[in-house]
Parts: sequence; C-alpha cells; structure tokens
Amino acid sequence: MHKLPFAAAALLLSPPALADGLVDNVTGLTLNEKGEVVRFTGLLVTPEGKVARLMKAGEKRPDKLDWRADMKGRVLMPGMIDAHGHVTELGFRSIELDLSDTRTLAEAQAKITAYARANPDKRWIIGGGWNQEFWGLGRFPTAAELDAAIVDRPVWLARADGHAAWGNTAALREAGITSRTASPAGGRIEKGPGGQPAGVFVDAARDLVQRVIPAPLAKDRDAAILKAQDTLLSYGVTATSDMGTSLDEWLSYRRLGDLRLLRVRILSYAMGVDTAVQIGGSGPTPWLYNDRLRMGGVKLYADGALGSRGAWLKRPYADAPGQTGAGFMTDDVIRNLMVRASMDGYQVAVHAIGDRANAQVLDAIDEIGDTFKGDRRWRIEHAQIIDPVDLPRFGQHGVIASMQPTHETSDRVMAEARLGPDRLAGAYAWNAMLRNGSKLAFGSDYPVEKPDPWAGWAAAFTRQDENGQPFGGWRPEERVTREQAWWAFTGGAAYAGFAEDKFGRLAPGQHADFIIVDRDPLLASPTDLRATKVQETWIDGRKVYERK
Amino acid sequence: MHKLPFAAAALLLSPPALADGLVDNVTGLTLNEKGEVVRFTGLLVTPEGKVARLMKAGEKRPDKLDWRADMKGRVLMPGMIDAHGHVTELGFRSIELDLSDTRTLAEAQAKITAYARANPDKRWIIGGGWNQEFWGLGRFPTAAELDAAIVDRPVWLARADGHAAWGNTAALREAGITSRTASPAGGRIEKGPGGQPAGVFVDAARDLVQRVIPAPLAKDRDAAILKAQDTLLSYGVTATSDMGTSLDEWLSYRRLGDLRLLRVRILSYAMGVDTAVQIGGSGPTPWLYNDRLRMGGVKLYADGALGSRGAWLKRPYADAPGQTGAGFMTDDVIRNLMVRASMDGYQVAVHAIGDRANAQVLDAIDEIGDTFKGDRRWRIEHAQIIDPVDLPRFGQHGVIASMQPTHETSDRVMAEARLGPDRLAGAYAWNAMLRNGSKLAFGSDYPVEKPDPWAGWAAAFTRQDENGQPFGGWRPEERVTREQAWWAFTGGAAYAGFAEDKFGRLAPGQHADFIIVDRDPLLASPTDLRATKVQETWIDGRKVYERK
Repeated sequence: MHKLPFAAAALLLSPPALADGLVDNVTGLTLNEKGEVVRFTGLLVTPEGKVARLMKAGEKRPDKLDWRADMKGRVLMPGMIDAHGHVTELGFRSIELDLSDTRTLAEAQAKITAYARANPDKRWIIGGGWNQEFWGLGRFPTAAELDAAIVDRPVWLARADGHAAWGNTAALREAGITSRTASPAGGRIEKGPGGQPAGVFVDAARDLVQRVIPAPLAKDRDAAILKAQDTLLSYGVTATSDMGTSLDEWLSYRRLGDLRLLRVRILSYAMGVDTAVQIGGSGPTPWLYNDRLRMGGVKLYADGALGSRGAWLKRPYADAPGQTGAGFMTDDVIRNLMVRASMDGYQVAVHAIGDRANAQVLDAIDEIGDTFKGDRRWRIEHAQIIDPVDLPRFGQHGVIASMQPTHETSDRVMAEARLGPDRLAGAYAWNAMLRNGSKLAFGSDYPVEKPDPWAGWAAAFTRQDENGQPFGGWRPEERVTREQAWWAFTGGAAYAGFAEDKFGRLAPGQHADFIIVDRDPLLASPTDLRATKVQETWIDGRKVYERK
Repeated sequence: MHKLPFAAAALLLSPPALADGLVDNVTGLTLNEKGEVVRFTGLLVTPEGKVARLMKAGEKRPDKLDWRADMKGRVLMPGMIDAHGHVTELGFRSIELDLSDTRTLAEAQAKITAYARANPDKRWIIGGGWNQEFWGLGRFPTAAELDAAIVDRPVWLARADGHAAWGNTAALREAGITSRTASPAGGRIEKGPGGQPAGVFVDAARDLVQRVIPAPLAKDRDAAILKAQDTLLSYGVTATSDMGTSLDEWLSYRRLGDLRLLRVRILSYAMGVDTAVQIGGSGPTPWLYNDRLRMGGVKLYADGALGSRGAWLKRPYADAPGQTGAGFMTDDVIRNLMVRASMDGYQVAVHAIGDRANAQVLDAIDEIGDTFKGDRRWRIEHAQIIDPVDLPRFGQHGVIASMQPTHETSDRVMAEARLGPDRLAGAYAWNAMLRNGSKLAFGSDYPVEKPDPWAGWAAAFTRQDENGQPFGGWRPEERVTREQAWWAFTGGAAYAGFAEDKFGRLAPGQHADFIIVDRDPLLASPTDLRATKVQETWIDGRKVYERK
C-alpha cells in the first residue's frame, strides 16, 4: 500500500553529499594484520571518518576532496591503544595529591603538608602514587610519619600499585580502627611492635578506612574522566581498556557520550559480574557513540600485587618466609563467576600476578573452556609471574596475556627481592608468551605507571629502564621485537577487546584514528623513542589534540 | 592550514538525498498552541520524520515524494501523551497475576489458585490490581483468605493503587513478620483482633515484606518495558511520563535505546534526588535517541493514597475518626530535596493526594519559588483533594496540575466515604485548576488505571464513568471542555515535560507522531469516544503499530 521511508533513529541530519578528505605528505607507518610494516604518503578519509585508502608516493590524488591537510612530511601512525588502564583513577590522580615523583619520605611529607595548606576546604586529603621502594625505605611508612606532615585532617594515600594505602591517625580514628581491629579476609592491617595499627592497609583491609571517605560527586567523576582523556590524547592514546568500570563510572561515560564529549575509545570491563549484568543485562552493550564506548566484559581479581606481597605465590616470598600472599577467590567462586559471565557472552579478564593465581585462572579456563567454546578471548591481566610449567597453557587455550612492559622496568629490583633468583624464568615473560602461542596485548596499568606507550614500547624490546639499566637488558631473552611490541600496543590491544575490525591499524574500513609524531619510532634509538612527542592526535578523521 | 570535515559523532551514514513523504487523504485533526482545532487532509513528513507541513483539501501535493500513504479518509490525530504512568510496573502487571478484573473476593481466590497452578516454577506468586471496594468487601482482605487460595508458596499482591499489599502466611513467614513487628514510620501493618498481622501492609510497611522478594532480573525488566510499550502503542500513546524511574529501570531504557527498541517517548522522572544525580550528574540528561528518552526531573512523594487512607488530610477521615494519614516528609526535608533538585536544574514533580499534602508542597514552592525563578514548571502529581483556599496558589506559582480523570470515576464513591460531603469542593477539581490559572496535564496513572486515554478523555468532559454514572456527572462544575481535555492529553502533557517544541501537536517542526483512529473523537458521544479503536500508531513518520 505504501512505502516506508528509511528512518533510522540515529539519522538526525541529512547533510549534503560529502567527498573524502586527505591527510597528505606524510611519512605514513602502520602494521598490517600480519604484523608487517606498511608505508604510505597519504591517508584518504571518508566523510564518516574512516580510512578510505592508503596512498603511495606518486599516486594520483583524487580531484574532488572536501578537505586536505598537508603534514609536510611528518610521521603519521595509528593511534596507540592501552590494553589495561583505570581511566577515572588516572583523572583523580591528577586532581588529587600525587606522590609518584617523590624520591624520599621527607620529600613526600613536605609535599603532603604543602598540598593540605593549598586545599584548606578538603575535608579529607586524598592521594596516592607513593612507593616505599623508590624512597629506599625498605619498609612501609607509618601513621606517625604521616601525622608529622598533617594531624588536623584525615589523610589517605594509595600506594603506586593501588593495592595498599597509608593513613594518618585522624583517618584511622574516623574509621574506628584500633589495635583490636582484625585484618579481614583477603587483606592485612600492618601492625606496629605493640600490635597497634601501623598505618598501612593492604588489599581488602583498605576498605576498613575507605568506606568512611565521602564518595566523589558525579560531576567530580565526570571531570576526572575528561582530565584523563586529555592526558591520554597527549600521549597519542586513542583507545583504552578501562579495567574495572564501576556502575557510577559507567554512568559518567554515558553522560559524556550523550554530550559528545567522549573522544578516546573506551573498552570497558565492568567491575565484577553483578555490575556487568546491571549495565548490560543479558549481554555486552553494543558499541556506542560511533564506537567510542562498549562494555564488553568483566574484570575479576585473582590476587593482589607483588610489591605489597599480595600476589599469590606457589611458594613463599623469598623476603618474607612463610608468606605466600592469598587468592581473592576460592576455585569454586572463580569458576562460578567465569561461568556466569560467559553464559551471557561477557568476555572475562582476570587480574593474576603471582604464579599460583595465574595457575588458578588457567585451571578454571581448563575446566570451563570446553563448555564455552568459540571466540572467547580469555584475558589474564598482568600475567606477571608464571611458573614455566604453566606457560604452554596460555597458548593451548588462546589466552590473551595483557601485560605492561613498564611494570618490568619499575619492578625488577623489587621482584628479585620478592622471588629470589630461581623464580624469574617466567617473570614478565613477554617473549615466552609469544613462543608459547599466546597473544600479547600491552598497556601501562595507568595510573600505577604513567599512561605513556612510548616508554612501554621502548622497554618491551630492550628490557632496560629510562636510564638504560641494566646494561644489555634484564633477562633479555624475554625481549620482543620492536614490531611485535608496536602490534601489542595497537592491533594486539584492539584484538584483546574484540575491536580489530574497528581500529588498531590504518587500513580501509578502520576508523581514521591516527597520530602525528616528531620522529620515526622504527628508526629511533630506545632513548629517542621514549622521548617521542605526539604533535597531533586524530580520531575519526578529526583532530582532537594538538601540542601547544 | 586545512579545513576540517563536518563530522558529528552521530552521523554514521550519508544517505542519498531524500524527499518528503505524504500521509494523504486523511480527516486530519490537531490543536494548535492556542488550543484551537486545526483541520487538514494531508500531512507532509520530512525524511527525518518531522512534520513538514499540514496540507488542506484541494491544495496541490508535491510532485517529488519519497513515499505516500493513502489513509482513505480516516481520522488522523496527534499521538496521545500520558503525563503520569509507571512503565515498568505496567509491563510487569501484564506478566504477573492481574486481579484488576475480579469483582468478588471468591473470584480473586479462584484466579490466584489457577495462576499458581499454571506457574509451578515461580518461587513467589507476585501480582496486583485488587481493590476491596470493587469486591464490596468494606474491609481489607486477610492473610487467611489468601491462604485459602494458596499455602505452599509465598504470595504478595499489590492493591490497585500501589499503596498497599496483601500477603499470605508463607510470605509473612519468609519476611519474619510476627505480632511483635511494629509498623514503621510512614506505614501501617493492618492488625487482626488479637494484634497479629492481618495480611495487608500499607505504604512504607510494604517494604517489610518486599525486601525479601527476589529482585527481577535485568532481562525481565527489559521484557516488561517492551511489553508496556506495546500496550501503550495499542492505545495510541506515543509519549509518556515515567513517574519514578529507578536506576535499574533507567539502565533498561538505555539498553533498549542502544538497541533501537525504544519507540514510545519516555519523559523520565527519577525516583528521588539521589537517583537523579546518579543518572544525570549535574543536570537533566539531554534528549536521547532522537527524542525518545530524557531524564528531566525528580519524583518525590508527599503522601500516600486515599483508598488506603495514606493520603495526608487537614482534618480526619470521615470514615476513620482521628486518622489523618501522614506526610512522608517533614517540611524541612521536602524543601531540602526540592532545593537540591532545583539547584541542578531538575524539574520537581511531587505526588500529593490529600489536602494537607498539597498544601505542604504549595508552601514549599511558596518559600523556594523566589530563589528558583525562571521556567521551573513545578508539578504536583494527582493534586487530588485540594482545600479550596489553596486552589489559587496553583496559578500564582505556575504549578502544573498533573491529574488523572479516570481516578475521579473510579474513586468517587470511596472519596465520598473518606471525605464526607463537605470536603468535595476541591476534589478532582480539573476546571477549578484552569479557572485558577494552573495548567493541566492529564494521564492515567497506569497501571493503577488502564493506560487508556480515551476513557480519560471521555471522563474529563462528562464526570461520568463507563456506565454513564452518575447521571449528569459527579460535581459537573468540574468538567472541562472536550478540547481542553484533549489538550491536557497532548500539548499540555508535553508542556508539563518541557517537550512542547518537540511533540504534542501536529505542526511544522514537530515530530510526526500521529495515530489513525476509527472515529471522529470531536463528534463521538462519550460512550463512542471510550470505544475508539486505534488502527495505526506512527512515531517519527514511521508506522510502529497496526491493529490486527
């Protein structure tokens, strides 16, 4: 009787027909799906912001173009992807007191006092980034040492790894912590010589204090995410996993997306199965806001971190006899959660640092992998300390090793102390993952480390830190090639998030997410690569960042 | 240096240039902004689904059309808008046990037993819709009477007004209710002669049982909303307020919107200020999904309902000496909540049934109205029993009276009993609202009443029920005209939700939301108007419902 119009709900505007745009005169570099370098001199972009074509030198440019950007020979590459970060925490870290650049306890104390004076209206002084190893302290700091910096208001400061926190006496008092307060399961209250709480709380014990800290306001959370986004774009990061999105963080992403303020693409992993189901219902969300946001899976935690001895080891810590850390979940619980998530099609990403925790996750995948076949892409986050006997199991199950190269350079001295010399064969073992048939995705674990993919890339093929230490690289057999590392920070990270058809390289049909940098990262020395400056960042063929 | 492409994030597709479509050969009726009837024979629709133009008989139709629908002379009108409903509850009501058609207690008992047999896997039997007034019972039913229908599983049945619920002994046992359980503030446990709980729980007392009922799954909530949507479309309702959206309900709306399954436009009022802020952050959400969803304000409750004597009256109930009902909030609390909402730009809609509750809300608006100037559109939901001395205050403050005509026809006998003859002057006083300069928005309060705007429209200009009772209308001076009632169910309801520039009438620039009905509602007798059948419902110029 009648024909219905084409009326997709999202189609609000009927623009005049647009031609492609051209980013021209570039030293273009990308990897293809096989991990091979592809070079080009022009990037043709569709009106919708996707790659139409890579153009070679001398190839005739289209006559009809809607716009043209002349890059004057500069290097153009795909946007970098961080496979493991914490977006909101990164934002809050840059608003809150940041101790990550302090090199002594005294320096930290001075900075805390100054921050408190500069922020007289903050009822709690909140911050983080401290690392007693960097201070050469050889032990955790104490509440008394924090009281020396500030006594009149509660102070609560997260350790750099996010697995421990340090409070002053006012904070402990508000939380009602006394010498009779017991350490909860999965956590530990550090005790002083007389049994009194010493000031540092590890893993689950942190909740004893954190529950009394006023929650941030929704608008503060929005501001933190926008701040983090600015930081990521300045490093050339155009997409990132958010590893453990809370419901409130998800609501912030929606607000920003609704207002068209989301620029970085967020691959969200919900904090636990209940949160995933509350957000997604019976499955992952679709890609939203033109592929800027998707909640595709769940983040689970099998253990804590190595620095705070929360990582779960098969044998005791070398520097803490009798301690092996502790698993966060029983075998039954982790299986049940993985099954619940998998039944509804959620991807599962499990934090596992210690060799025992990694074995527990691999055991669970062993057991349920036959039931949940197909393209599951089980992810182990960090996969930091692996018993060599477990390495082949990564490949057998197609497990993605989501690892952070700068953790190796930051941790190696601490790791040698925690593990002793005979347990390092499977430590930060990037190359072993590839040799065993696993797929690598690289990230930074920001704000634990800086969200700097250039430092990660350089570390990955050198096993040396920013000072070139140690000479020849630490356990250099675990280096990967420069190209393998680049892939893990681009196409590999996209694959780990089921996004390889959307972004991660420059090829027809992919989003035109690219960066202009001030040097050729395939030719630069490791030191020069670390110093790479991102001059422009583009997402969907549109410039979203330019270095001032 | 270079020109950036036009690249709005939502612009995913570049369709070929489209021409308008035409719905032709209609008996077209709409109201204009002044509430005057406008007639037309053709509706020209833009490719984006908006009204391009109303066309008169004999006027030349455009040569180039993308599509044309011949309605063969049938009546075309703007879609109806329900200014006050509960979308998810409507959906669950149609999945759950529905007692709204039972006319005796025995009939209800038989239906409960049959439903329980038909649903052996349901651990709880959940339902509602009962009304002891319709049963001629003259008192609440008892747990023992429900045990007679089913004893082996807990049963929990909401009263038609949603302000009371009836449980059997198994339900009370699971909730741990005993004769020692005290009525909570804002609620009442009905007691038997020996002080034992009688089976019915009023207002806040319902939570004592409800907290032990397993929560619906996210996918069940999605299914309920889709079911409600189908029901609304079949009545010709193309937009509705959702009066008290929980966070989980909001997440369901987002899931359905993301999947392009939202058709009815939802004007969401968050359940309380905390929920509004959690969803919207520092203000209402934008219009989402091409104006299908917006959270623009908060729903607050000043009191309960008249039927269960939860409405807050200035003087005691005529049929319960000494009882005046109770306010849900102190004057301070209601002001604080209204201020918190208004500071962030949320619209405030307060449920107020009794004259005391209405006066409390008007007092609050009096006090804070000077601080929060501008276009606030304070809403009072129900505005059911008004002390005549308070009526002028609606107009003084530009308060919107969001009223439900079918409540009058359902309630009048009960209202006379509750209030006695001398307190009816301001009861369901629609015309008085207009006389006093208030703006009317009409709805049904579904699922308390059927989501049937045709019954509401007929009631509004007759003050008679579906049987034509009482002859001449109940307190007929409070009738409004047929056109005034129509406006309250269309443009007035849109205005009440800050949507008058988007929908509510047929005029250039408005969404092409319209219905095809089987009679002319401006000519039909009240009885015929009630029997109106909606043959087609269109939203954004696209047919979304057709009667089989």
